[in-house]
Amino acid sequence: MKLNIALLAGDGIGPEVIEQAVKVSDAVAKKFGHDITWTPALTGAAAIDAVGEPYPDETHDVCVKADAVLFGAIGHPKYDNDPSAKVRPEQGLLKMRKKLGLFANVRPTFTFPSLIDKSPLKKERIEGTDLVFLRELTGGIYFGEKGRRDGGETAYDNCVYSREEVQRLAKKGFELAMTRSKKLCCVDKANVLETSRLWRETVQAMEKDYPEVTVSYEFVDAVAMRLVQWPNSYDVLITENLFGDILTDEASVISGSMGLMPSASVGTDNQLFEPIHGSYPQATGLNIANPLATVLSAAMMFEMAFNLPEEGAAIREVVNKALEEGMVTEDLANGGKSYGTKEVGDWLAANI
Amino acid sequence: MKLNIALLAGDGIGPEVIEQAVKVSDAVAKKFGHDITWTPALTGAAAIDAVGEPYPDETHDVCVKADAVLFGAIGHPKYDNDPSAKVRPEQGLLKMRKKLGLFANVRPTFTFPSLIDKSPLKKERIEGTDLVFLRELTGGIYFGEKGRRDGGETAYDNCVYSREEVQRLAKKGFELAMTRSKKLCCVDKANVLETSRLWRETVQAMEKDYPEVTVSYEFVDAVAMRLVQWPNSYDVLITENLFGDILTDEASVISGSMGLMPSASVGTDNQLFEPIHGSYPQATGLNIANPLATVLSAAMMFEMAFNLPEEGAAIREVVNKALEEGMVTEDLANGGKSYGTKEVGDWLAANI
Ligand SMILES: CC(C)[C@H](C(=O)O)[C@@H](O)C(=O)O
Ligand SMILES: CC(C)[C@H](C(=O)O)[C@@H](O)C(=O)O
Repeated sequence: MKLNIALLAGDGIGPEVIEQAVKVSDAVAKKFGHDITWTPALTGAAAIDAVGEPYPDETHDVCVKADAVLFGAIGHPKYDNDPSAKVRPEQGLLKMRKKLGLFANVRPTFTFPSLIDKSPLKKERIEGTDLVFLRELTGGIYFGEKGRRDGGETAYDNCVYSREEVQRLAKKGFELAMTRSKKLCCVDKANVLETSRLWRETVQAMEKDYPEVTVSYEFVDAVAMRLVQWPNSYDVLITENLFGDILTDEASVISGSMGLMPSASVGTDNQLFEPIHGSYPQATGLNIANPLATVLSAAMMFEMAFNLPEEGAAIREVVNKALEEGMVTEDLANGGKSYGTKEVGDWLAANI
Repeated sequence: MKLNIALLAGDGIGPEVIEQAVKVSDAVAKKFGHDITWTPALTGAAAIDAVGEPYPDETHDVCVKADAVLFGAIGHPKYDNDPSAKVRPEQGLLKMRKKLGLFANVRPTFTFPSLIDKSPLKKERIEGTDLVFLRELTGGIYFGEKGRRDGGETAYDNCVYSREEVQRLAKKGFELAMTRSKKLCCVDKANVLETSRLWRETVQAMEKDYPEVTVSYEFVDAVAMRLVQWPNSYDVLITENLFGDILTDEASVISGSMGLMPSASVGTDNQLFEPIHGSYPQATGLNIANPLATVLSAAMMFEMAFNLPEEGAAIREVVNKALEEGMVTEDLANGGKSYGTKEVGDWLAANI
C-alpha cells in the first residue's frame, strides 16, 4: 500500500519524538510491504519564526493532500507570558483543526501494568482503567464570536452548537461504543447550559438507532469527581470542546502513563495523530524525551487512517516489549538504567 | 451578640444535617453568651412542592433580613431525568445566588489526618493539602444570554465578564492570600477565551497593590491535572464560574474527606454557608447522613459572617474530637462502630 503522510514536527521536543515514530513506522512498512512517503511541513513557533504564521497555507496544502498527518507538539516559552500576543502557536493549532475539519478528538486513557505505580492514584482505583474520550474539537466556545465592548471593560465568548455538530460527534461515540463494551457516557451541564440541553436531547434521540448501547448522562462536575474516584467505571465518553479540554487532561494523569498517551483528531476528509504531551522546551535537543506517545500515535494512525490493524498491533507489541525489558527513557526508569530518545527509537525499529 | 440566621434546610438529607448544625450552633451560642434567632424558609424541591417556585420571594425576604443564611442541600430525583423541565430546584439556587449577590464562593479543601486513607490518591500526594478556591458565582456563562435559533436546531450560551466583576472577586483572593501563605493562582484559559484574557489582565493590574503576594497564572486544563498530581502545591486559587464548578468538585474528592467539606458564598450584603455535598435522596430520613460538613459550615459562619473566630474554633475542635474518638456516621466508620446523624449531633453539642 502507498501511504502518503504529512509530517508536522512542531516545536521543542517535537522533532526528536517525531523522528523515532518515523523510524518505527518505516520498519513496520518494510515488514508489511508498504511504501511511505513523508512530507514535512512547518507549524507552531517554528512556522512563526520562518514565515510569520503558525499554520501556513503551504502546510495546510501538504496536510490536505496527505492520507494522514503525524504531528509532534507545539508551543514555545517566548509566547507563554503574553496570552494576548498577536500571533501565537496555539492559534495555528485551532486554525489547523478548523481548516482540516477535525471535529472529533479521540483520547484514550489506559494503564500499563508496569507503570501503574507511577500514578498519583492508588493501584486498586485505577487497575483495569481503559476509557476513551471523544471531544468535539471544532465548535463550542473555542470558535464562537468573542470580543470586547464598553471600551474594553467587558469581554464575551459565545458558545454555539448546532444539532448536526452534536450528531456527527455522537455518531462516532455510538460506533466506538459498539466496538467496545457498549457503554456510552454523555458529559454535559444540562442543568445550566442551553447548548448542553441540545447535546442531551440530540444524543437521547439517537439512542433508538443503537439499541445495544447503554447511555448515561452525567454533569461535567460529577465526571470531574468520578474520574478521580473510579476511572475504571467509564468506557466511552462524549463531550463538547471545553469540557473535553479539561477532562481529557485530568484523565491523562490518572493512569500514571501520561508520557505514553497517544491521540487522534479526525474529520470527514482528514485525520491527524499526535501525542497528548506538550513541547517540553526545557528538554529540547537533550535526547531525553520519551518517544513512546508519538510511536503509539503512529500505531493509531495505521489502525484508524489506513485500516491496518496488524501493523498497529505490531507497534503496540514492540512498545510493550520495550517497557518490559526496560528499554526506556529516564522518566520511566525509576532511577535504573535509561536510554536516549534515539536509542529507544532505534531499538523499537530493530525489534518490529 | 444577637444573631439572626435564616435556615434553608432544602431537600433530601438537608433537614437532617441542618438540625445537627443548629444544635451545635446553639450550644456554642450558649457557651459564649450569644442569642440566635433561627428563621426557617422554604427552598428547592420542597419549595416547588409547596408554592411552585424553588426560591420564593418570602424566602428571599427572610435571607435579606438575616445576618447570615445556613443552607442544607437541594435536588430531588424526580427532576433528574429532565434537565429541560420548566421549574427545577437548581434554578432556585442560581436565582438565590444572583438575588443575594453572592459573587464569591469560598471552597476550602483540606485533609484530616485520620481520614487520609480514604482518599483515592496516595498519601504522599495529599499530605498537607490545604487549599481554597474562590469561585466567581454570579457571572460568566451561567448568567449570560442563552437560547435557540434556527428553529431550535442551534443553541447558544454567552459567557460575559466585566472588569469590575473580576476585580471584586480577585480582591477577595488577594486578601485571603495575605492571611495565608501569600500565594495566589489565577486559573483561566487565556490562550483561547477573551473573558479569560480580561481576567488575566485585570489580576495582573492588581498585583502592584499586593506586592507581597506571589501570583501565578495557569490554564484550566493544566490545573485539572496538577490538582490530582500535586494538590498540596496550591494555596489560594481564583477562577470564573464554570471552571470553578468543575475544579472545586474535582478538588473535593482528593482529600478523602468530601463528606466533611464546608463552603461559604459571600457578597457585599449577604453571606450563605452550606456543605458542598448534595441532597443524597437515597439516604433521606434514615438517620445515616454525615452532618459534619454542615457543622463545619456553621463554623465558617461564625468566623466569616459574625467575626467570631473563637466560636468557629470551638466547633472545629469538637469535630476533630469526634473524628479522633470515632463518634462518626457509617461512611467514616471503616466498618467499625458507627452512630446516627442525630447521635453525632447530640454528642457534638454536648461536648462544645
Ligand atoms: C493549546 C490549546 C489551545 C489546546 C486546547 O485548549 O484545545 C490544548 O490545551 C489541547 O487540548 O490541545
Ligand atoms: C446545581 C448546579 C446548578 C450547581 C452549579 O453548577 O453551580 C452545583 O453544581 C454547584 O456547584 O453548586
